[in-house]
Amino acid sequence: MSSGKRKVDQVDPRDVPKAVVSRLSLYLRELRRLVRSGKATISSSQLGRLLGLTDAQVRKDLAYFGHFGHPGIGYRCDELVAAIRRILGTDLGWTVAVIGVGNLGRALLGYEGFAAQGFRIVAAFDVDRARVGKAVDGVTIYGLEQLADVVRERQIRLGMLTVPAAAAQSAADQLVAAGIVGIVNFSPVTLSLPEEVSLVAVDLATELEQISFAVANRNATR
Amino acid sequence: MSSGKRKVDQVDPRDVPKAVVSRLSLYLRELRRLVRSGKATISSSQLGRLLGLTDAQVRKDLAYFGHFGHPGIGYRCDELVAAIRRILGTDLGWTVAVIGVGNLGRALLGYEGFAAQGFRIVAAFDVDRARVGKAVDGVTIYGLEQLADVVRERQIRLGMLTVPAAAAQSAADQLVAAGIVGIVNFSPVTLSLPEEVSLVAVDLATELEQISFAVANRNATR
Repeated sequence: MSSGKRKVDQVDPRDVPKAVVSRLSLYLRELRRLVRSGKATISSSQLGRLLGLTDAQVRKDLAYFGHFGHPGIGYRCDELVAAIRRILGTDLGWTVAVIGVGNLGRALLGYEGFAAQGFRIVAAFDVDRARVGKAVDGVTIYGLEQLADVVRERQIRLGMLTVPAAAAQSAADQLVAAGIVGIVNFSPVTLSLPEEVSLVAVDLATELEQISFAVANRNATR
Repeated sequence: MSSGKRKVDQVDPRDVPKAVVSRLSLYLRELRRLVRSGKATISSSQLGRLLGLTDAQVRKDLAYFGHFGHPGIGYRCDELVAAIRRILGTDLGWTVAVIGVGNLGRALLGYEGFAAQGFRIVAAFDVDRARVGKAVDGVTIYGLEQLADVVRERQIRLGMLTVPAAAAQSAADQLVAAGIVGIVNFSPVTLSLPEEVSLVAVDLATELEQISFAVANRNATR
């Protein structure tokens, strides 16, 4: 165990439920807030209470990756932040491209939450010639045909896809050909990608469907 | 079992893993596409293959809610679409408000995926007087102080929150006081809500963290 770092176990990502990884993000966000507010340590039950989870759930989630608590102390907040960043790999720093500079693309370019989590948007791409050459929030917009060159030059590893559904697969294929290792897809279409490229699909209607499900089934019989 | 409808079992939403509900959205999306392309029936393994899931996973997910397959036929696509809409409660139709009309709010107001899934955005709210009274994609922007009145008049049930982090809890409190039953929160802050109000938190950096986790842990030791 090196200076100030708790050991993080190597895991096969396929062995970890997606929901656990989502909660790591939640823990990280809450722990950063606690560090900023000057809190040095926290118990699993305190952390759970802040996030509406049981202490058992918190401990079980973290146990996938090692042992992070200190007897009689709980978790050291800054230490756990560093450990979760290592688990998530966000300590590595990632360069990201946004493909599609409509309202959603612009929202992503202006989103303040990325930089603090280790994601740096370094380029944007669009087919609209009126947008190409301009910059949004300091990020230059390139033509889609420049994708391969810019991805190589700027060593971009991840892409966020916000193009219309009909253009999504083709744009994804270009990202893959350019050597990108992961894609966050906001277009409401299922992409077909080679196995070695990681994919997270975001469909904004899905979030509303989750709410609908919870509310509709909460109320007695229909 | 009434005309053309397969029975949907009543379930306690707390008994269904969140990931299962997310996948219902995926199934629904793919099945609608199949119906549009003229496909009448599909097997669990075909549906699974289209979405990168095993047939066992597909069957297990649907089994939470009843029995939907036909021996020797598989699923009837239109029937399964109707069943999943009933399960998700999106057949009920939902009225939605967007709170915060920055880039992300505008992206939501222009997002084509909502109406087809049963979500109708009927009002938007912002504190910026320059925006109030205008319309984006046919949706009127009201001042935040009009929230309670407009929510009551337009019978709005769900809210999507895209205000800055510092304003999110206060806006959420106003939504709850106005009688909204569910909130999708895009602000990077953990909201505290009464138990009877459903909450889904969307943090756009979380999606990148999922990708980061998958890529970072895929590569041998670090």
